Amino acid sequence: MKKHIVSALVANESGVLAHVAGLFSARGFNIDSLAVGETEDPQFSRMTLVVAGDEAILEQVRKQLGKLISVVKLQDLSHTPRVERDLVLVRMSAPPEKRGHILDLVQIFRAKVVDVGKSEMIIEAVGSEERIQALLDLLRPYGIMEMARTGRIALARSARA
Amino acid sequence: MKKHIVSALVANESGVLAHVAGLFSARGFNIDSLAVGETEDPQFSRMTLVVAGDEAILEQVRKQLGKLISVVKLQDLSHTPRVERDLVLVRMSAPPEKRGHILDLVQIFRAKVVDVGKSEMIIEAVGSEERIQALLDLLRPYGIMEMARTGRIALARSARA
Repeated sequence: MKKHIVSALVANESGVLAHVAGLFSARGFNIDSLAVGETEDPQFSRMTLVVAGDEAILEQVRKQLGKLISVVKLQDLSHTPRVERDLVLVRMSAPPEKRGHILDLVQIFRAKVVDVGKSEMIIEAVGSEERIQALLDLLRPYGIMEMARTGRIALARSARA
Repeated sequence: MKKHIVSALVANESGVLAHVAGLFSARGFNIDSLAVGETEDPQFSRMTLVVAGDEAILEQVRKQLGKLISVVKLQDLSHTPRVERDLVLVRMSAPPEKRGHILDLVQIFRAKVVDVGKSEMIIEAVGSEERIQALLDLLRPYGIMEMARTGRIALARSARA
């Protein structure tokens, strides 16, 4: 099933989030990731959703969302040149003898060590989904203990001319 | 009102997200930010919520969430030493004569220019909420056109001994 990345500017009101998420799940869409953050205007939040599903059904969801007065603007960025980013914090098993190998990967991916303990490390990585996936695949053999991931956000690329 | 940062490991099923978000809004909590991303186990997603509200009511919400079979693990990280990160993409108005000033700020905050157009730029910044807020405050006079923000994610710090 095709993945879609949808960006919605919504009123910052209690219940809006549950309503929008509910609309997608009522149509059988699984939400792969969702990021909701503040915007420049405290009245509005921006939701970025990655959903997998049928294009025709997505169009129906878009129409329904467009009818909600709490949804101000809705963009399907799937077909637009865009910058996409995802952020992850990963707790690695990292006793002293493994630290060097993990640090090599951190450097190659321009990630960062943001916390270190006796036998653990927390790594921060930012990038496209593929880039983060590649780093995680290489870290996995050393022992991923826990992770928190934001889900993707995206903005359309700027006009060059 | 006090802000709480709550991390929940939930089953990756259609409807869970709407259900959890609905529980918070039914109790009158506004969700400041929400990040939902994949974990190492494809069966589970991790939700990180920042909510503002009364401690006693949050405790009730925690108990209700604990009863849902789709919520596997719930942590209130508010009182724990932790690493917190937030990611933002900002579209700036950036005609050539303003680029230098914006780039200075990008360097100081170790942010990144990830796209540049004729009279715009997209900047990527990662950090604590305060750090991102400081950068946005300094960028604002140059003209913020659009932004997408992930909302915070967090992991508890590792034991040092």
